[in-house]
Amino acid sequence: MSPVRTLGEIARLIGAGLEGDPSTPIRDVSSLERAEEGTLVLVTEASYLSRLAQSPAAAVIAPPNLAIADRPVLRAKNPRLAFATVLELFHPPPTFPPGIAPSALIAPDATIHPKATISSFVVVESGAVIEAEVILAPFVYVGPRARIGEGSRVHANVTIQADVRVGRRCLIHPGAVLGADGFGFVFDGESHRKVPQVGTVVIEDDVEIGANVCIDRATVGETIVGRGTKIDNLVQIAHNVVIGERSILVAQAGIAGSSRIGRDVVLGPQSGVIDHMTIGAGSQVAGQSAVIRDVPPGAKLAGSPARPFDEELRVIAALGRLPQLLKAVRILEKRLEALEARLGEARD
Amino acid sequence: MSPVRTLGEIARLIGAGLEGDPSTPIRDVSSLERAEEGTLVLVTEASYLSRLAQSPAAAVIAPPNLAIADRPVLRAKNPRLAFATVLELFHPPPTFPPGIAPSALIAPDATIHPKATISSFVVVESGAVIEAEVILAPFVYVGPRARIGEGSRVHANVTIQADVRVGRRCLIHPGAVLGADGFGFVFDGESHRKVPQVGTVVIEDDVEIGANVCIDRATVGETIVGRGTKIDNLVQIAHNVVIGERSILVAQAGIAGSSRIGRDVVLGPQSGVIDHMTIGAGSQVAGQSAVIRDVPPGAKLAGSPARPFDEELRVIAALGRLPQLLKAVRILEKRLEALEARLGEARD
Amino acid sequence: MSPVRTLGEIARLIGAGLEGDPSTPIRDVSSLERAEEGTLVLVTEASYLSRLAQSPAAAVIAPPNLAIADRPVLRAKNPRLAFATVLELFHPPPTFPPGIAPSALIAPDATIHPKATISSFVVVESGAVIEAEVILAPFVYVGPRARIGEGSRVHANVTIQADVRVGRRCLIHPGAVLGADGFGFVFDGESHRKVPQVGTVVIEDDVEIGANVCIDRATVGETIVGRGTKIDNLVQIAHNVVIGERSILVAQAGIAGSSRIGRDVVLGPQSGVIDHMTIGAGSQVAGQSAVIRDVPPGAKLAGSPARPFDEELRVIAALGRLPQLLKAVRILEKRLEALEARLGEARD
Repeated sequence: MSPVRTLGEIARLIGAGLEGDPSTPIRDVSSLERAEEGTLVLVTEASYLSRLAQSPAAAVIAPPNLAIADRPVLRAKNPRLAFATVLELFHPPPTFPPGIAPSALIAPDATIHPKATISSFVVVESGAVIEAEVILAPFVYVGPRARIGEGSRVHANVTIQADVRVGRRCLIHPGAVLGADGFGFVFDGESHRKVPQVGTVVIEDDVEIGANVCIDRATVGETIVGRGTKIDNLVQIAHNVVIGERSILVAQAGIAGSSRIGRDVVLGPQSGVIDHMTIGAGSQVAGQSAVIRDVPPGAKLAGSPARPFDEELRVIAALGRLPQLLKAVRILEKRLEALEARLGEARD
Repeated sequence: MSPVRTLGEIARLIGAGLEGDPSTPIRDVSSLERAEEGTLVLVTEASYLSRLAQSPAAAVIAPPNLAIADRPVLRAKNPRLAFATVLELFHPPPTFPPGIAPSALIAPDATIHPKATISSFVVVESGAVIEAEVILAPFVYVGPRARIGEGSRVHANVTIQADVRVGRRCLIHPGAVLGADGFGFVFDGESHRKVPQVGTVVIEDDVEIGANVCIDRATVGETIVGRGTKIDNLVQIAHNVVIGERSILVAQAGIAGSSRIGRDVVLGPQSGVIDHMTIGAGSQVAGQSAVIRDVPPGAKLAGSPARPFDEELRVIAALGRLPQLLKAVRILEKRLEALEARLGEARD
Repeated sequence: MSPVRTLGEIARLIGAGLEGDPSTPIRDVSSLERAEEGTLVLVTEASYLSRLAQSPAAAVIAPPNLAIADRPVLRAKNPRLAFATVLELFHPPPTFPPGIAPSALIAPDATIHPKATISSFVVVESGAVIEAEVILAPFVYVGPRARIGEGSRVHANVTIQADVRVGRRCLIHPGAVLGADGFGFVFDGESHRKVPQVGTVVIEDDVEIGANVCIDRATVGETIVGRGTKIDNLVQIAHNVVIGERSILVAQAGIAGSSRIGRDVVLGPQSGVIDHMTIGAGSQVAGQSAVIRDVPPGAKLAGSPARPFDEELRVIAALGRLPQLLKAVRILEKRLEALEARLGEARD
């Protein structure tokens, strides 16, 4: 952890406005729920102010218009961004001395940049390329001809299969598997015969991949994850999927073969997309939903199968009244019968 | 496996009542479906008696009131518990000689208790602490300053990131990842900027964690799994989640950021809890359900989104009649129209 | 990659009919979307012909009756199968020299066939058996007494626990865990006491197991995956599950304890089967469905909980009209009320 800084210093470093004593010492950042003395906390809404009042936090990061009377405030238009910056300030990422650990096994014809860090018990196979400032943690496997781009960090127990290409500044969490075979079989009348999966996976720059994520190699061609896309834990990405830039795939989501996800898409937790779908840019799919039709750009969907979000909300609300509706219709039927009978009489 | 024991010995060791010949030799435990000669089986309900009749099992563990005529019986108030105890008797857990395998790499300033077992190809980083009677299997990574409590067992290919604390007598299955970064980003207008995840994970005593489970570190503060909680395979626990004691998270369930799960809660398989929820103690959430509102203690919920269990049952039953209901309403409309027409005539 | 071949050679090797110049050189296979010059592509339906027209592909594999005018065609009754065969032709699986890498740690009483390939940093424990032509990638753990059958390939970071038996010609992708403890506890009034999981896992021949899949060992007896069954990534198979031959479990599906899945069953992505179910041979369960009742052979199910597929389709269609239905019934009620009032008057 970094040393204590003054609030004035922090304001200057992150470019925030300051209300209160610039000499206020700040020793760390904390959550509002568990704030400690001498720390800076984030408050984005008035509803948190009562909690703040009881907190020993030394100062607050807050948006421009939120009135805060009881302690110094750093004002930021995007307070979450300011908070992230201060987090970095107090918790700079660890640095790793470059070099290859004695126990790492590097194929003679693999290329390791002298500024890369290869930890103990790493295997880098023939023809693989590890660029500058890459960090490979223990038990990382890099298959033949795979390439890890400059500044990427690969955590422990990650498997990167043959020919997979990882871009620059990517972050891959433990247990992720890049480039396992796609799930492709053809029934030959007797058994499911394997369709060789001879394509690969391309991860563009600035992608983050969560723990135990699976991204399968293409049957032929490439499974692609676009620049700046962020993938949460336990997500499944099947063969030949193409994901655009800056999309967000939340935990346990799954995308079946050959689907194309546009840029700036959000797939909620435990959602699914069947094969060969196209999801337009900027679309959002709620958690546990299932996309079974193409989705135009900018759509908001929910449900299994997925409907437009507002429609699904109405369906959900109506569903709760379905049992009463059944009763209401039975009553209507009886009333109508009675009426029909009476009208019959009336006519007689 | 242990040697043959007599039924009398077993009755005495597990404190069960005995009906039948105490000298009956028992060589192992088996399932009722695949019982073998000389084995003890568990029968908890009368519906299993016909299967028992055809089984070569030597004896039975059964509850007090279940009439069993055809072979010796161990009577136990909690027959499942008695069965578990007999399983332990015949299959004591393997023991591991303490010591550090020659190929393990232990940082000079890590602390390994002399009674711990560190297998081959284990990495323990700087400042980490491994307490007495801990067993680390091959390819376990223990990050800087992490701590593994007394008597815990960590299976192969588990990744425990920096600063994570694991309590005593925990059992962590292969491929689990503790302390990967939480999934936190803030959009800066151009890209999803990473919010540094500088908190950690605390696993209390007696927790079991399934294979390929992911438990993310807190943004700041701690993600906490309470004492005695059991987590099945492939479960996702996001940053800053707090789980109470003795809860049960069934396979493939997922809990989003900052949610608080009370004690004695059961989350069914493939269920989900969105972020910032509070689930009260003793609540039960059915499989594939989605909790999107706070849940009071003792609630039983089902559905996506989750409703009270009984209500969801009624909705499900009603749903099956929905297509007919549509028809019924169309018929009602026609009859009403006809009636309106006739009444019009009648009035004329 | 293999050298260039002529179309005539390929036709002969895969037993396909040929229309066009047999001397056409083919250098590889590609997808229709990203076809390159000199490659062979697969076209199964007329809807792809416009894309083919714009593609530089040198030739096409197509079914017998699909008219293709603009380039040479290989005719095959099962074009997907033919495509798979050509893929194998151009991309034969890599071969591995047999032998044990110097860094692998093999227990003195483990049996390694001289034709097996044991990579660096593999651990094979006491009593384990590795048959001929098995390939174990780095960081594979093979527990005590486990057995890997002839010709099976196990990718990096896979954990195979004690006593697990893997058949012949199986393919196990990275991060899979075979034989972790089943999730079995019995509440003793104070805590969830572990039920020892002393059974094992049996994987029959020709099974493929996806990345990060979890297959738990039986409490007693065996969890079984039948011959020729294919399992996609991140699937969960609980203790004592028995899966028949040639079934297909798509990504992120989960099967709870003791359920029996017949042969030729398909479980869709993210589907779930609760414990102690029986699913008949040839049944198909749609994605995100939940099987909570026994399923007869040949059934097609969908929904959570699962219904017959056609019924679920009707329910889904009806659901979209539910909000209007609520309105329609309210209108009916008013009209009926008015009618009742009028009829009351009419009678007066």
